[in-house]
Amino acid sequence: MSFDAQVITLFPELFPGPLGASVLGRGLDKGLWSLGTTQLRDFGAGKHKNVDDTPAGGGPGMVLRADVLAGAVDAVSIGDDPRPRLLMSPRGKPLTQTRAHQLANGPGAIIICGRFEGVDQRVIEARQLEEISIGDYVLAGGETAAMVLLEAVVRLIPGVLGSKESRRDESFENGLLEYPQYTRPQEFEGRPVPQVLTSGDHAKVKEWRQKQSESLTRTRRPDLLGKGN
Amino acid sequence: MSFDAQVITLFPELFPGPLGASVLGRGLDKGLWSLGTTQLRDFGAGKHKNVDDTPAGGGPGMVLRADVLAGAVDAVSIGDDPRPRLLMSPRGKPLTQTRAHQLANGPGAIIICGRFEGVDQRVIEARQLEEISIGDYVLAGGETAAMVLLEAVVRLIPGVLGSKESRRDESFENGLLEYPQYTRPQEFEGRPVPQVLTSGDHAKVKEWRQKQSESLTRTRRPDLLGKGN
Repeated sequence: MSFDAQVITLFPELFPGPLGASVLGRGLDKGLWSLGTTQLRDFGAGKHKNVDDTPAGGGPGMVLRADVLAGAVDAVSIGDDPRPRLLMSPRGKPLTQTRAHQLANGPGAIIICGRFEGVDQRVIEARQLEEISIGDYVLAGGETAAMVLLEAVVRLIPGVLGSKESRRDESFENGLLEYPQYTRPQEFEGRPVPQVLTSGDHAKVKEWRQKQSESLTRTRRPDLLGKGN
Repeated sequence: MSFDAQVITLFPELFPGPLGASVLGRGLDKGLWSLGTTQLRDFGAGKHKNVDDTPAGGGPGMVLRADVLAGAVDAVSIGDDPRPRLLMSPRGKPLTQTRAHQLANGPGAIIICGRFEGVDQRVIEARQLEEISIGDYVLAGGETAAMVLLEAVVRLIPGVLGSKESRRDESFENGLLEYPQYTRPQEFEGRPVPQVLTSGDHAKVKEWRQKQSESLTRTRRPDLLGKGN
């Protein structure tokens, strides 16, 4: 069974968007993963299909209604659907490479894109939505966050990346930031490729890269060290 | 002068994508910000317009050439262009709401979308590219990351969000996660709106929300406390 993603959104026309390009798009075409969208508006309340209302207790913005979102979730998540129900939200648990691997090894995901000031807390509890955040900043809606989450996950599905795009040494896979890379030309504006990299001594190359990774991580992201992200 | 974004990418057709929707798209139409794209391939080397080559020192993947990227950067960033040159990269400094505010108050940004295993380190140094990361996970390329960065920044540009989408109380603006939200209906599947929110006592509402924010942040993101993110 391939990875099956279902996105609940007010903007289904934005998908697949970047998820249809390059290796991710080729994986989609090959059936290595699938993507469906659900228009949240179809589950709106009343003649005007309203999906939001003002916050109880006052304050700015609008809040996504519990009954409306529950309707959409129930329509796509039937019976004992094993897929996690993820709500993209800056309040959520930060997405990590580890979580991306877990999701890639699973049956797929139902992904809810918020808009407005927030989502009624009662549907989060009643439908056991898992709030997940892609970073410590605020977006206009959950759509780009859903794209980022799916991109991080889908590229880990076996067969999506070819050997050309292999991912053994990259950032976060070993708890360190990736070492600096160089390629041809041998000299660029008076800057040569570091000699060790053209020495042909594989042990020395490996050692140099490891040291560079450690040094870069210590300088830029000391919070990552010893975390085993 | 409005915020002027220029994106260097192998996939210009993906833009504006989600940045053309909703409030961000209306801001684009109104000229509150502008968005251009540059096809990196146009600066490729040789007859085949190659943009990448194998890593010096060996290893999987391909590396974006320094001379090719420098050509594209130099073509869009002329003279004393005041815009920061941002390279979307998991090795970069994490994007925060504070950085998003700084960028929104500036003249715009030149945003470089990486692909492949990485970018030749020499162009990063020679063109003083600022590596910036949207989170601790790996993507297939920098395009969705660029969208996320621009979305976080553009919504902060005055006039882009209306009062309906106001952003006073949201996550990260005060170093805390946002309190739970509720709206109509008054009861959802036997779950009422918390009584304090319908009491009409504004001081009590404010106090309840503050406590909820603090408690949620302590439980989910103790790393944020005292950080003044």
